[in-house]
Amino acid sequence: KQYRIAVIPGDGIGKEVMPEGLRVLEAAAKKHGVSLHFDHFDFSSWDYYEKHGQMMPDDWKEKIGKHDAIYFGAVGWPAKIPDHVSLWGSLIKFRREFDQYVNLRPVRLMPGVPSPLANRKPGDIDFWVVRENTEGEYSSVGGRMFPDTDREFVTQQTVMTRIGVDRILKFAFELAQSRPKKHLTSATKSNGISITMPYWDERVEAMAKKFPGVKWDKYHIDILTANFVLHPDWFDVVVGSNLFGDILSDLGPACTGTIGIAPSGNINPEGDFPSVFEPVHGSAPDIAGQGIANPIGAIWSGAMMLEHLGEKVAGKSIVEAIERTLAERTLRTKDLGGNADTTACGKAVADMVD
Amino acid sequence: KQYRIAVIPGDGIGKEVMPEGLRVLEAAAKKHGVSLHFDHFDFSSWDYYEKHGQMMPDDWKEKIGKHDAIYFGAVGWPAKIPDHVSLWGSLIKFRREFDQYVNLRPVRLMPGVPSPLANRKPGDIDFWVVRENTEGEYSSVGGRMFPDTDREFVTQQTVMTRIGVDRILKFAFELAQSRPKKHLTSATKSNGISITMPYWDERVEAMAKKFPGVKWDKYHIDILTANFVLHPDWFDVVVGSNLFGDILSDLGPACTGTIGIAPSGNINPEGDFPSVFEPVHGSAPDIAGQGIANPIGAIWSGAMMLEHLGEKVAGKSIVEAIERTLAERTLRTKDLGGNADTTACGKAVADMVD
Ligand SMILES: CC(C)[C@H](C(=O)O)[C@@H](O)C(=O)O
Ligand SMILES: CC(C)[C@H](C(=O)O)[C@@H](O)C(=O)O
Repeated sequence: KQYRIAVIPGDGIGKEVMPEGLRVLEAAAKKHGVSLHFDHFDFSSWDYYEKHGQMMPDDWKEKIGKHDAIYFGAVGWPAKIPDHVSLWGSLIKFRREFDQYVNLRPVRLMPGVPSPLANRKPGDIDFWVVRENTEGEYSSVGGRMFPDTDREFVTQQTVMTRIGVDRILKFAFELAQSRPKKHLTSATKSNGISITMPYWDERVEAMAKKFPGVKWDKYHIDILTANFVLHPDWFDVVVGSNLFGDILSDLGPACTGTIGIAPSGNINPEGDFPSVFEPVHGSAPDIAGQGIANPIGAIWSGAMMLEHLGEKVAGKSIVEAIERTLAERTLRTKDLGGNADTTACGKAVADMVD
Repeated sequence: KQYRIAVIPGDGIGKEVMPEGLRVLEAAAKKHGVSLHFDHFDFSSWDYYEKHGQMMPDDWKEKIGKHDAIYFGAVGWPAKIPDHVSLWGSLIKFRREFDQYVNLRPVRLMPGVPSPLANRKPGDIDFWVVRENTEGEYSSVGGRMFPDTDREFVTQQTVMTRIGVDRILKFAFELAQSRPKKHLTSATKSNGISITMPYWDERVEAMAKKFPGVKWDKYHIDILTANFVLHPDWFDVVVGSNLFGDILSDLGPACTGTIGIAPSGNINPEGDFPSVFEPVHGSAPDIAGQGIANPIGAIWSGAMMLEHLGEKVAGKSIVEAIERTLAERTLRTKDLGGNADTTACGKAVADMVD
């Protein structure tokens, strides 16, 4: 079967790393007899916004809603478009309207990437963060009263639905069950956030009963972030709400050295809508246009996309090629102490794929 | 003048570390001619709850509301009392009803404490986390609808008031202005939490105008936690909402090696009510009763209390004694690779005070 992929480079370094991601995908597809068809789209970017006054065409859902997956670079250019227009007009819209309720990110210490943590080596840190991606703290309910007076206040509701919480927990428990350690950690804060978080805990307990083979524990988010730094080897699958997952999936990659190489999937597990695969890093206006961006985040996201499509062998071949590339100083980009530029690094990974 | 201090050891290791805290306070008071009077209270503990069916007497405010400060051990014994009874019935009640709207915690890499971060030495990490301590994400507004059905959902409101936000920002900017670097960092998440967090940003901008001598920046909480690990030397004063401050003030101490030595103040800056000084660690049921708990968190909290009371020289003498004690392996507790027990460590600090 041929997979149809919508390619959206977006803004800034998104446009620089995506060609490398595609190069590597093509190399892996060729080696493993996978057939990929790419359709390119220029929307969800500042350029598009400048021309059309909106982030995406009105019929964006028809344009990309039938693809097997969306391969995404980065969006956002805060100096030119406010975040609430650029992000809520594209990335967060995808998550909501394509019901990509899982945000999945690996936290893995790779060879050649210096960890900021003392005495940690590749193999010591290897877990997944599973983040609820549609509700929770990122709600649209709330407002402001008594503006410009001393009585002024704002409120915003955190919203957790039974359906929303249960489905992300089910995904996380299933993932834990599929792994050798079969260990799940839930992020909570039920001692301080006294309504939504105890509910989250309650649903975790209920779901755990359905997965007797999975050992599980929970930590309040404050001490959990501390444990990411002190004991990153404790974790296997970590599940959290939209906000807690967001925090943990930046902190995790930082503990393994850099956000520059971290990939992510915004996944609709049922396949009713396409899933989005994108590097964790943003558009990085400060280094855009120099050809020095690290393409590994985008390339690794491509590997996650292949695995999601069911092409596990091809996906794995890319991850292994990334590991071999990162291990060579001369093939790494400058941010990792190497001297390759974006293209040289991408080509190296493509060559390593086998 | 004589300072009247209410002493509440609370639960678990709270009862073991407080005598050491008092020992050191007495030593410093004697050296520096400060007069301290201690009143001891057994409430806010599991023992009290077992006898009286509530965490505190009805007249707790009369009992401790007129003291100059409250020196607190730890509360909570989750296996025996649910958190929402023990914490909301004491610690969080103090914060709310004594309007302790500032939660202040130092993040400082101390000699002799191994940092989990590679290549960081004492002096490299030295900043304050200022946390809003009364409103924000820890609200009491919300509820559950359609229980036990597929439509079930819970909501909880984050509430930020102009008065509440402005006063914590003012405190943080003033603290930044008093420090050599004069640098303030605000924790936000306005790109995802679209109502309350943009309001926070707006108030930061307004307050910054009143402190032209302070350089300030802001980071989204996800990348900010990453930067605590990657660039802890960037920070001087970090201010955040109740939840973000909670997270950052556990993560910060973890980056400097251990939560076991971290102190905190729950401060009512106007002095209308007493402030509470307590170690960041909890009651630690797992090690309680063994006499091995690290007393430095409690001792350092005592130093913060003296500084808050205006006894800066005496407070500083304790912090310096802590530094000298930690530098000696034999005087440190087991959690820091030493072999002193709680009492030996406390005595060592008391002896070092000068
Ligand atoms: C015990 C808990 C409610 C509390 C908090 O979250 O405020 C604690 O973590 C703290 O930081 O003092
Ligand atoms: C850009 C921002 C809205 C987004 C988020 O918070 O979800 C980002 O941090 C991410 O993790 O994908």
